[in-house]
Amino acid sequence: MEPSRLEQQIKFILEIDKLKTVLRQTWLVDGSRRENDAEHSWHLALMVMILAEHFPGLDILKTLKMVLVHDLVEIDAGDTYAYDREANKDKDAREHAAAQRLFSLLPGDQQAEIDALWREFEALRTREAICGAVIDRLQPFLLNISADGRIWREHGVTSAHVIWRNQITLDQGPKVIADYILAQIKEAESRHFFAAD
Amino acid sequence: MEPSRLEQQIKFILEIDKLKTVLRQTWLVDGSRRENDAEHSWHLALMVMILAEHFPGLDILKTLKMVLVHDLVEIDAGDTYAYDREANKDKDAREHAAAQRLFSLLPGDQQAEIDALWREFEALRTREAICGAVIDRLQPFLLNISADGRIWREHGVTSAHVIWRNQITLDQGPKVIADYILAQIKEAESRHFFAAD
Repeated sequence: MEPSRLEQQIKFILEIDKLKTVLRQTWLVDGSRRENDAEHSWHLALMVMILAEHFPGLDILKTLKMVLVHDLVEIDAGDTYAYDREANKDKDAREHAAAQRLFSLLPGDQQAEIDALWREFEALRTREAICGAVIDRLQPFLLNISADGRIWREHGVTSAHVIWRNQITLDQGPKVIADYILAQIKEAESRHFFAAD
Repeated sequence: MEPSRLEQQIKFILEIDKLKTVLRQTWLVDGSRRENDAEHSWHLALMVMILAEHFPGLDILKTLKMVLVHDLVEIDAGDTYAYDREANKDKDAREHAAAQRLFSLLPGDQQAEIDALWREFEALRTREAICGAVIDRLQPFLLNISADGRIWREHGVTSAHVIWRNQITLDQGPKVIADYILAQIKEAESRHFFAAD
């Protein structure tokens, strides 16, 4: 017997539980352990709710959906640290294979919807994708500042790297957030949170 | 100097990082550890996206916002296990105090919005609150079934308790989900996932 729509949906819902076991580099604010992709995605969604006013004309529902699904492919492809240039080389191929396997657990129309959301997020062209990207970079930035730059120093990340990572915010993000980031970087430099150039 | 709106928002965003350290009773599907409130909230939001079609007339954006914020009060009040009748007695007072402290970190208009979403979720009267409640009960149910009822047996939870906990789904939820739950309970009974009556 063909599985019903609900059975297909529940299979997907149980499969994506694995996102809770994909660890990121970022430490929690309390320093107790590293963050995982599922709680990171929750944090981004809350940030979209709270910071939406700084992104005029934003489709909030679409942005929320995007940030909720944007890391699902890491269930198979793993988290690729933003500052690891070697691992970023085959990231696209690994993530596209993951999208195919995971999203195809869903009924066809929903597979297409989630796949389109993920591709739009990755392509970084729409207002919603840019908001998602700004917030996806701001969240670990805030956590890293709270942790006195622990992960930056561990990985030899310089302030120039962090500026490069937040370039989309500086170029296309809200001025108030760009200014905040630049001020925080300046302050962090004076407190030696970064590796030396 | 008064903190800017963005500074108030960022203070709140960093404070709610603590939701990642509030542990629930439910085990992850892979059995490696218990789930925390932040990843649970992410899972609910994804479920709202995937299961919305079973809730006619649903305001999806409002439902997503509700499930994203519904557990924030547990940062101060802790997670109260649904089947612990003693701890549930002063749950309301603890959670209202938490809502006051946490949400007041935000600018006034946003404090009011989040507080209203949380109260609507708790009051269980609107279509969106009922959807949130159905999914908030379905998620641990699915994880507990996947874990062969480990937590139910640990806590002496009977199948009658589980039916009581999912009563809102049976009374006001989509028939297809109610039928699914009843069928799964029957199957779980035959596999001895529950404590004896």
